[in-house]
Amino acid sequence: MPRPLHLHADRLFPTDPAVRSLTRQLYHHVARLPIISPHGHTDPGWFADNAPFAGAPQLLLQPDHYVLRMLHSQGISLERLGVPPGPPVEPRAAWRIFADHYYLFRATPSRLWLDWVFSQVFGLQVCLESSTADLYFDTINEQLATPPFRPRALFERFNIEVLATTESPTDPLLQHQAIRASGWHGRVITAFRPDPVVDPEFEGFHEQLQQLGAMTGEDTAGYAGYLAALRNRRAYFASMGATSTDHGHVSAQTADLSDREAEALFRRVTAAACSAADAELFRAHMLTVMAGMAIEDGLVMQLHPGSFRNHNTQLFHRHGRDRGADIPVPTDYVHALRPLLNRYGNDPRLTFIVFTLDESTYARELAPLAGHYPAMKLGPAWWFHDSPDGMRRYREQITETAGFYNTVGFNDDTRAFLSIPARHDVARRIDCGMLAKWVSEHRLEDWEAAELAVELAYTLAKLAYRL
Amino acid sequence: MPRPLHLHADRLFPTDPAVRSLTRQLYHHVARLPIISPHGHTDPGWFADNAPFAGAPQLLLQPDHYVLRMLHSQGISLERLGVPPGPPVEPRAAWRIFADHYYLFRATPSRLWLDWVFSQVFGLQVCLESSTADLYFDTINEQLATPPFRPRALFERFNIEVLATTESPTDPLLQHQAIRASGWHGRVITAFRPDPVVDPEFEGFHEQLQQLGAMTGEDTAGYAGYLAALRNRRAYFASMGATSTDHGHVSAQTADLSDREAEALFRRVTAAACSAADAELFRAHMLTVMAGMAIEDGLVMQLHPGSFRNHNTQLFHRHGRDRGADIPVPTDYVHALRPLLNRYGNDPRLTFIVFTLDESTYARELAPLAGHYPAMKLGPAWWFHDSPDGMRRYREQITETAGFYNTVGFNDDTRAFLSIPARHDVARRIDCGMLAKWVSEHRLEDWEAAELAVELAYTLAKLAYRL
Amino acid sequence: MPRPLHLHADRLFPTDPAVRSLTRQLYHHVARLPIISPHGHTDPGWFADNAPFAGAPQLLLQPDHYVLRMLHSQGISLERLGVPPGPPVEPRAAWRIFADHYYLFRATPSRLWLDWVFSQVFGLQVCLESSTADLYFDTINEQLATPPFRPRALFERFNIEVLATTESPTDPLLQHQAIRASGWHGRVITAFRPDPVVDPEFEGFHEQLQQLGAMTGEDTAGYAGYLAALRNRRAYFASMGATSTDHGHVSAQTADLSDREAEALFRRVTAAACSAADAELFRAHMLTVMAGMAIEDGLVMQLHPGSFRNHNTQLFHRHGRDRGADIPVPTDYVHALRPLLNRYGNDPRLTFIVFTLDESTYARELAPLAGHYPAMKLGPAWWFHDSPDGMRRYREQITETAGFYNTVGFNDDTRAFLSIPARHDVARRIDCGMLAKWVSEHRLEDWEAAELAVELAYTLAKLAYRL
Repeated sequence: MPRPLHLHADRLFPTDPAVRSLTRQLYHHVARLPIISPHGHTDPGWFADNAPFAGAPQLLLQPDHYVLRMLHSQGISLERLGVPPGPPVEPRAAWRIFADHYYLFRATPSRLWLDWVFSQVFGLQVCLESSTADLYFDTINEQLATPPFRPRALFERFNIEVLATTESPTDPLLQHQAIRASGWHGRVITAFRPDPVVDPEFEGFHEQLQQLGAMTGEDTAGYAGYLAALRNRRAYFASMGATSTDHGHVSAQTADLSDREAEALFRRVTAAACSAADAELFRAHMLTVMAGMAIEDGLVMQLHPGSFRNHNTQLFHRHGRDRGADIPVPTDYVHALRPLLNRYGNDPRLTFIVFTLDESTYARELAPLAGHYPAMKLGPAWWFHDSPDGMRRYREQITETAGFYNTVGFNDDTRAFLSIPARHDVARRIDCGMLAKWVSEHRLEDWEAAELAVELAYTLAKLAYRL
Repeated sequence: MPRPLHLHADRLFPTDPAVRSLTRQLYHHVARLPIISPHGHTDPGWFADNAPFAGAPQLLLQPDHYVLRMLHSQGISLERLGVPPGPPVEPRAAWRIFADHYYLFRATPSRLWLDWVFSQVFGLQVCLESSTADLYFDTINEQLATPPFRPRALFERFNIEVLATTESPTDPLLQHQAIRASGWHGRVITAFRPDPVVDPEFEGFHEQLQQLGAMTGEDTAGYAGYLAALRNRRAYFASMGATSTDHGHVSAQTADLSDREAEALFRRVTAAACSAADAELFRAHMLTVMAGMAIEDGLVMQLHPGSFRNHNTQLFHRHGRDRGADIPVPTDYVHALRPLLNRYGNDPRLTFIVFTLDESTYARELAPLAGHYPAMKLGPAWWFHDSPDGMRRYREQITETAGFYNTVGFNDDTRAFLSIPARHDVARRIDCGMLAKWVSEHRLEDWEAAELAVELAYTLAKLAYRL
Repeated sequence: MPRPLHLHADRLFPTDPAVRSLTRQLYHHVARLPIISPHGHTDPGWFADNAPFAGAPQLLLQPDHYVLRMLHSQGISLERLGVPPGPPVEPRAAWRIFADHYYLFRATPSRLWLDWVFSQVFGLQVCLESSTADLYFDTINEQLATPPFRPRALFERFNIEVLATTESPTDPLLQHQAIRASGWHGRVITAFRPDPVVDPEFEGFHEQLQQLGAMTGEDTAGYAGYLAALRNRRAYFASMGATSTDHGHVSAQTADLSDREAEALFRRVTAAACSAADAELFRAHMLTVMAGMAIEDGLVMQLHPGSFRNHNTQLFHRHGRDRGADIPVPTDYVHALRPLLNRYGNDPRLTFIVFTLDESTYARELAPLAGHYPAMKLGPAWWFHDSPDGMRRYREQITETAGFYNTVGFNDDTRAFLSIPARHDVARRIDCGMLAKWVSEHRLEDWEAAELAVELAYTLAKLAYRL
């Protein structure tokens, strides 16, 4: 007999009965607020085409790097799961392997998100395990083929007010154009992610620069034309709804070079070979340049540093990026951000949202910085820390110094579209639990907690991202 | 209708009813113990002159770098708050801005401290918000003009047994002389903070050395005379009640140079230009020298490292030091302290109290070091971490390795005189809560917790600081 | 009147009544499971000779570096405690000093372990303090002289299923031979700790290499013979029951040199003088070599990095190693382990168990690495963190990313034989408390927690260490 799948109404709430009761009250007022998703990686093509999703493993297993990393860690090869490239596998076989090993996810956020999807999206009532693999496979696949499970229908069912995707500067944004042309009222917007054209070590950097020139009519072989081309594309992205840019760097290093220094550096990094130090300096300088452009055009700027990408060389050569082999590294913010902050940190027109994978910086560096500089805000707990305990550590370690109003609400940051409501629900539950604890310790009044619950779940994200 | 301002009797106590009840019992025995304040930054002139405090914004807003940093982070310029230098602002206008933004401090320690001051010092019964700004302004200002609100009266009302201020070696300590000459029985003592004469990068280092020579009759152009002058001033400070010295360095680096090396280094750092490496080495060496002098004269030595001062260059140029723009940096203790500890760490005559702004060092470095070296003790949670959750993390991360008796009780470390009782009260509440939790987990007996509550609130500070 | 010594049945359980009740149920099922002790430092001679232990201070005080460090930190010299070398002290006098200062251990794990030993092994019913010092001394010494307190009897009474000791490659394992020859059924096995022959900075490295050559008949003056000798000893250790190797390095650095590079490096590190960089590179390379050998011979590989040994030079010169003067340092894993992981990390035949003394790496580096690489597993909370709060932080910071099945159960890692059941009991209590909390937050089902409690207490260690 398979075990019943049951999402308890009080899940993730504090265990103390009085605190739990208060959490329940706070949560009741935010549980159904619309979803603001200002940063993520869903495919705009889903909403442009509105075609049915392919099937359970293609949608829920093969693209989910959280799931792949855990299965790989227990010796299950990505080939057997049908992760490309590789010989095709029978989807049902891949799904069965997943079901056989679903116990590995006990107490992980993946389990929370997936159980929500299974229960709330597909109506499954038993746990995923070997004996229910086929039931799951068939139930999910049947439903995915029906109209209520198409991307736009789910978007509406999920009560998403706005959803941002992330595209490269050289993306023509055809899918975003198609969404807008379709007459569908769902608000799906883009965000500007310039890494491929500002990171000299990005694969295909030179081709990307040429393409950027071709798209904009600017001479991207020179620094002035390069900057003009970036401004051009930022404006185009803004015209397609973008309110933000996003910057994914290994370090948080910034620099503020003179025009002459920057021009000379640009010549060096666009030459055939480029030193690692020059590449780092150029990325660092371009963050400050982008902050200046953000003041001009009003796009909110996000920095996501601190991930050592593709740590597993064999896996990278076989399967490419984003397969669960990215590992966080210690990240310095105090020295690294100073050039940018000294140039623009006091300018209230700039919103500069900083994330981290290094929790040791929450209380030591990020809360003090965000609790001082008008331009800087703290992004929510990210990636490995986008989890119940990760979110609690975030609030416990930053709130006493940075307060609530230097934070920006929640980001789901996901390509797993079906899990978006589950992720926001986890954040709302955890934040309500934290607020209830503070009220119970008489550090907040109950009416303040009620206000804050709404702000953390909805308002702050909308304001910070100018949505 | 403004909201009532209510300090709940159980504030900051654990939420579990049984643990809370035990906390209440422990707290009951320490709540009214006299305050030992062995380290802080109040102005001795207040107690020398005993003049009325100027007014609400001058006393509670403009000098408080915790408050300034948060208001600045939300785009409120320090000029509008009347922070010097700058055009004078109407005090009531500055206070209203503060009141309008008081919600920013939700769940911060500033809110805890200020609400205590509002309620317990000034008897205010409604919350600070826009609608009550004038009521606050008038109530506070009226009371400050009356005798019970003069510095000495508040000192007595606060039940302060001893209060240490902090002065530079070249301070003639006239105010401390005046306090002693006045016949007032309040114990206000100084502490020796030699940064201006041991840090070659301190502004005015050369002038300070000359002044030090002039004050002591020693030839501070030479290393031997310089050391003699320092000994002379230490003795003078001790004669004015000092029982401790305090050292604020960016790093915790120590060094133990031979006399010949030290003399050569002294010549280099007192020459016109001095390299950053020499400056760091000199500071490092002087910490070990000061530890040696501490063994001679019995002054307790404190080290406060790890703050990147004046991170915001614009703000520093406009408003100077201590405006809320100091940011913690990662701090190494294991390698950095070794020269000093290898020279003096086993000498039980030395008390060397070490603080940190880098909580990652609590369990990894500081508790193991303080839990081994007889000379070393751990200072309490400091600055950004002088907060309910900061104090809990401190106890949770150090106690299992360093125990209680390698810690030194609480420091308020503040220039905000009126908040001193509130700060000690927070520490007593949190420590009682931690003890109650350990008793409830059967890791301590109740009679041990009762002993420890008094030791943490009162005895350890008195013993460690030789008061 | 001395206070009663009472081990509460609910000690270390969460304080919330419902969570505590659930913890109790989970604990009930694991409390009496046999002890798997796959890594530790007990003396195999105890079980070979089965002679009575010498007496209370010799057994419980003088060899315990946790106890020595705390007493030393409070100014009690190791000489007075009878720590060799030094003039002999009267055992009763040393014990009395310990009793006088037993309050220093309040809320430390040493107190938990020792109280368990006093109460459960020796039946003492009052607390250790000055007035009970002699009672303790006499009671313990009398019992130690009787047959039920001999090593083998205690081993059986403690319900130890397997106990691993740790020996150097040049140890002839005579005591392990004697245990096997004795016919006693207790399973005491060795583990291979090659530091003395792979670390060029180890005292006596050259002599150890010669001895290694002499023992194996290999030419350890050459790299090929050196590797053959290591293989030879690994095989011999395996024949004496070893299932694992253990590597104690200051850093976690690994390297993967070509044979030619490795041969040249071997020549340099075996020459008269060797640079620190070469020594580090050789240690780094040998970790990767050992991982390769582990794949060949099936021994599980453990890495224990991050301890700055013998920080206190005076103490080291007077008393030698392992006296409580080892201090953790920050440890990098992401870059450091990459050469080894890129070579062997995807090989499911390798089990590579990594420990840390730097808790900031739990969530940032170790959980992501162990949650990705098939070969890598996370060792339990270690040394300074082998404590109730240390274990909680471990589970809270790693579980959401690495899950449970990339961990390996508990290690007591101790030379304090009598405390082994106490240490496993602490781990079982804390793990059951964590599981109960997750169930109460509806993040795990109760039947999952029941399975996991057994796995964490027993099964995972047995599987991971191939026992």
